[in-house]
Amino acid sequence: MTEYTKITLDESEMPTQWYNIIPDLPAPPPPPLHPGTHQPIGPDDLAPLFPMALIGQEVSTDRHVDIPGEVLDIYRLWRPSPLYRAHRLEKLLDTPARIYYKYEGVSPAGSHKPNTAVPQAFYNAAEGVRKLTTETGAGQWGSALSLACAMFDMECEVWQVRASYDAKPHRKTMMAVWGATVHPSPSDVTNAGRTILAQDPDSPGSLGIAISEAVEAAAADPTVKYALGSVLNHVLMHQTIIGEEALLQFAKIGETPDVLVGCTGGGSNFGGLSFPFLREKLAGRMSPTIRCVEPAACPSLTKGVYRYDFGDTIGMTPLVKMHTLGHDFVPDPIHAGGLRYHGMAPLVSHLYEMGLVEAEAIGQLECFDGALKFAKTEGIIPAPEPTHAIAAAIREANRAKESGEERVILTALCGHGHFDLKAYEDFLGGHMVDYEYPAEKVAAAMERVPVIED
Amino acid sequence: MTEYTKITLDESEMPTQWYNIIPDLPAPPPPPLHPGTHQPIGPDDLAPLFPMALIGQEVSTDRHVDIPGEVLDIYRLWRPSPLYRAHRLEKLLDTPARIYYKYEGVSPAGSHKPNTAVPQAFYNAAEGVRKLTTETGAGQWGSALSLACAMFDMECEVWQVRASYDAKPHRKTMMAVWGATVHPSPSDVTNAGRTILAQDPDSPGSLGIAISEAVEAAAADPTVKYALGSVLNHVLMHQTIIGEEALLQFAKIGETPDVLVGCTGGGSNFGGLSFPFLREKLAGRMSPTIRCVEPAACPSLTKGVYRYDFGDTIGMTPLVKMHTLGHDFVPDPIHAGGLRYHGMAPLVSHLYEMGLVEAEAIGQLECFDGALKFAKTEGIIPAPEPTHAIAAAIREANRAKESGEERVILTALCGHGHFDLKAYEDFLGGHMVDYEYPAEKVAAAMERVPVIED
Repeated sequence: MTEYTKITLDESEMPTQWYNIIPDLPAPPPPPLHPGTHQPIGPDDLAPLFPMALIGQEVSTDRHVDIPGEVLDIYRLWRPSPLYRAHRLEKLLDTPARIYYKYEGVSPAGSHKPNTAVPQAFYNAAEGVRKLTTETGAGQWGSALSLACAMFDMECEVWQVRASYDAKPHRKTMMAVWGATVHPSPSDVTNAGRTILAQDPDSPGSLGIAISEAVEAAAADPTVKYALGSVLNHVLMHQTIIGEEALLQFAKIGETPDVLVGCTGGGSNFGGLSFPFLREKLAGRMSPTIRCVEPAACPSLTKGVYRYDFGDTIGMTPLVKMHTLGHDFVPDPIHAGGLRYHGMAPLVSHLYEMGLVEAEAIGQLECFDGALKFAKTEGIIPAPEPTHAIAAAIREANRAKESGEERVILTALCGHGHFDLKAYEDFLGGHMVDYEYPAEKVAAAMERVPVIED
Repeated sequence: MTEYTKITLDESEMPTQWYNIIPDLPAPPPPPLHPGTHQPIGPDDLAPLFPMALIGQEVSTDRHVDIPGEVLDIYRLWRPSPLYRAHRLEKLLDTPARIYYKYEGVSPAGSHKPNTAVPQAFYNAAEGVRKLTTETGAGQWGSALSLACAMFDMECEVWQVRASYDAKPHRKTMMAVWGATVHPSPSDVTNAGRTILAQDPDSPGSLGIAISEAVEAAAADPTVKYALGSVLNHVLMHQTIIGEEALLQFAKIGETPDVLVGCTGGGSNFGGLSFPFLREKLAGRMSPTIRCVEPAACPSLTKGVYRYDFGDTIGMTPLVKMHTLGHDFVPDPIHAGGLRYHGMAPLVSHLYEMGLVEAEAIGQLECFDGALKFAKTEGIIPAPEPTHAIAAAIREANRAKESGEERVILTALCGHGHFDLKAYEDFLGGHMVDYEYPAEKVAAAMERVPVIED
């Protein structure tokens, strides 16, 4: 095994296909259902919001999908991303484990999100779409889509949850630099926003409201469509470039992972890293344990129920079968805003239900303790979301120390924390708290989940 | 020529020596003088502030200096840094020029500064120094030194100009994540700070005051030393890894630059990129035009006078021969805080005086206009300092378009602008202004520069 710190690939080695895991599974995931009829939805139901190319990818049974040359051209601005061996963290932990992390913070938007934002913008542009709309909370997804639209000369309109819009003005400016128009949500430019504002002029907003505004704006104009940054099959597929690169990088140094841990909010970063490794496992070429890591305050896999529910809070989207805490469950305000989602990608839920992946939940104090150890040894300051992955990797490394095993651990550092330093300030100042799992709130929310006969 | 977007090097290809340009020059730069006696200073004068290894490097006549293995180990966390071909910017400019940029924002601190912070921390740690002190304005240098001290388990104490400390809390948190103690300057923990606060309890501070505090704290304790992030010979030498890597990257694609432009504040980023190319030029192996780019509001090379002056505002440091606008000249508040320095590295000044490098000054409105074009095509949002380099590269590309020449342009993108988005907000909002060159203020400051007989 070569003693690398940072395993890089030349851009000529970048994978040219995404991986679609569905045809390799023992059974396909259950279909999404129409919110009104409860019947499986078809392409026509999605056409007002998404271009046909993406609708096709959503239901594709092709094992591999070519990445268009125009997308590869943009990917090359930051891809292939580096795979790191965390030598210095290992030393601090005094562990016999070897810890590797795939770093996606090298993208101009600072996270893995552009891996799907760029192809989404490309396919929309190719079908003549003039503008994309979307929602964003803390701003990672809104930044990624703004960047992607700039690359294809498209307009981009983002509804950002008002609380974040006011608290994180730099994210808004970042989106504006790439040419996007950013509204605080609720806004007065949509019926949904005006309705909320009429009830509460000082509403801090929510992702659910912001989705409603972005969807309304897209549905009202045939030259405008909507883009989603996680959860859907095609989004997870676009992210598999992460895992495909990591496989090449592991091959380069002659390693195979014993355990793979990735943080899960909507599931796109986790799916992106793990699906290519799961393919190898299903084919018997390696046998890593693959584990989702979710916040203890929002544990959809470990505490949620596997059933049909809405993807949004208001109940406008199709019903998807997933592990859910109830579509109107509002998680406590942990700093990992990207993991504050009531459900899980249907595909990740399906894998979990089939026992192909494991899951654990970790509280944010343990996560930030791990992140601080990571920053002081590896240098990079992680975004709040991947602090969960780091904490899980540290748990594994400590177990390896106890057992004396040379475990090979792989995780994904899906973004840097340059716009999240308030969270570190709270942690360093002793102001961060762990939230108890809100069992009663979840139970109440679950009562409002529609009952669907399978 | 291979059509790369991003030319990377494997970490095994990373240069293992820094380049010291002094022995290759027709004449060495004039020596620094003692501020009291006006006689050349010796190692003993510097020993209270710097470790002997760095004092030795400051006056070294060795052409190449080995990079210690412990420093290479840390460099590998982000080095070799990528060299980019700006295909998409070229297309926007419709230029026959090929534009390349070496990107240093991949370091955990987000700029080129860790290239010298890491060896400075290493040499101090090796000589038993317990703590390093320094000043910082906007925070790039303070962040880099905090990171470097974390890597060698040293303490770090940073005095940050109060105006920036209050306006940019995230930089302070970033330094704290890496374990540094950060004081607003003026502070009540030094005599210098208390003196200023007694006169003006609401003082916004200045780099000059912060230097005085950091130097006082280092001089008072033999286990504490001081670190400087630019200007000195050894600092510029540590940065030459940038240019050495770029030479390897150009060789890999079979290109040679026709013109090299780099922004200059203290001169370390410019020197780091350009000195290895200047060596090649002096040896007759290539013939690039090499040009410094400075802010029109603080044009030390193009408007300053080449004479002995103090490095700091208060007049405590040795006298160095450099292009200066007067040591107590306070530049207008342009956003490129790292370029608001009254003087220039003595080595860069010496090269300029000998006609080996050129210089031009550009106003910040042109710089940010260029930066916006860059961000929308190349994705990366530049820090305010390298917007000057980008604006100069665009001028060159436009000249190439006019003349129809296939010019090869190289510049350094020495950091990202994630902590400088307020500048972009001002620019996008139409609130940014260009400052006239303040001829009268400079003339007045120059009258207070001591008269030294050469």
